[in-house]
Amino acid sequence: MTADLEIIAVKSIGEVTRGADLAGIIAASVELHHRDVVVVTQKIVSKAEGRLVPVDDDGPAARLGVVLDQSVRVLRRRDELVISETSHGFICANAGVDLSNVDEGWAALLPEDPDRSARRIRDGLEAVTGLVLGVVVSDTFGRPWRRGLTDVAIGCAGLAAVVDLRGSPDDRGRALLATEVCVADEVASAAELVMGKAEGIPVAVVRGLDASWFREGSVQAEIVRPTGEDLFR
Amino acid sequence: MTADLEIIAVKSIGEVTRGADLAGIIAASVELHHRDVVVVTQKIVSKAEGRLVPVDDDGPAARLGVVLDQSVRVLRRRDELVISETSHGFICANAGVDLSNVDEGWAALLPEDPDRSARRIRDGLEAVTGLVLGVVVSDTFGRPWRRGLTDVAIGCAGLAAVVDLRGSPDDRGRALLATEVCVADEVASAAELVMGKAEGIPVAVVRGLDASWFREGSVQAEIVRPTGEDLFR
Repeated sequence: MTADLEIIAVKSIGEVTRGADLAGIIAASVELHHRDVVVVTQKIVSKAEGRLVPVDDDGPAARLGVVLDQSVRVLRRRDELVISETSHGFICANAGVDLSNVDEGWAALLPEDPDRSARRIRDGLEAVTGLVLGVVVSDTFGRPWRRGLTDVAIGCAGLAAVVDLRGSPDDRGRALLATEVCVADEVASAAELVMGKAEGIPVAVVRGLDASWFREGSVQAEIVRPTGEDLFR
Repeated sequence: MTADLEIIAVKSIGEVTRGADLAGIIAASVELHHRDVVVVTQKIVSKAEGRLVPVDDDGPAARLGVVLDQSVRVLRRRDELVISETSHGFICANAGVDLSNVDEGWAALLPEDPDRSARRIRDGLEAVTGLVLGVVVSDTFGRPWRRGLTDVAIGCAGLAAVVDLRGSPDDRGRALLATEVCVADEVASAAELVMGKAEGIPVAVVRGLDASWFREGSVQAEIVRPTGEDLFR
């Protein structure tokens, strides 16, 4: 039985530093196919884009000033945990500022415009390979009401972020009432299953997604819920 | 290149009615391997368990009474959309009550105890196949702050719901601060990518998950966040 979807961990990316050509590195590390989606973790995108800032020491306390600087609004705070809204409109712990897998004394910030980051990588990969590809930039977020973190999309390119199945008939031919599926987040979560957190696998390839989902997508435009539409902000 | 993770849509499940032996149906429909995780959508679990109630007509208005009956607390309400907490502690739209893909005049309720539902299916599958398997019962939930729905786990068996990577060293050998990954939700999301919403594919197999994740798991015990721990309730 052939799989409908395959996910491949790209294990040979190595250390990424400021100015790194991620598209070139990825293209040299894995053989891509038409309509693959390449999932790239935020951490190496931030490193390649030089989104690192010094912090005084290595603990969460040192991070707090950076976190508040990266926040446009703090929603909740308990001890050193800050849940805030970033300039992108993401609501996450510590404004996405991360101390793991970076050099001591440094913190990684989110990319300035993760959709743009995804488009750049996608453009580079398509230029090298001649294929139609999607790119998702992923990060690990918590969520209210449910324990445990899941990976979500913070940027995407070449793939719909949300697929609107509203109005498509169900299997009885009746219209579905509301089924807008956030495929970009599901792709990020699926990829995380092969990445692990501490094994240094920052890239995965998702192969076999529905062909109709390959169009220009945007996390910012499609996923980030405007304040006025949000029942929980 | 071999895939690290494979996802297979099980397309031949057919119509499920009250009392159906889901394990038997699934085992007859797909060749399972050692440590496969079988993802089963809530809808067919609810149907097999007879969790259907009559509603007066086919629209959201008719559902409202059932929704309120299935809610222990309403968090938000806008027109006919109700975000409430179910008896399980899930916070979701319309208390998980669903009118799609059920006969007109009926609504599907969530299983009474979805972890138990998952265990029953897992026990049945293991008895038939002699393999070690996991089962995730999935449903489609919205979330605050982000548009689009994703599939999450409402029940699981044989698979850790949350994998605790706190304290595992990152690739510089330092302890990660907090990485509890909700693999059950990520598995549900990954499976959804091959299921579609309106194509009647209620089962998928996820193959290749980390062997260490196969232990008895529980959405109720591991994922549902107690009120006192929740910053958003």
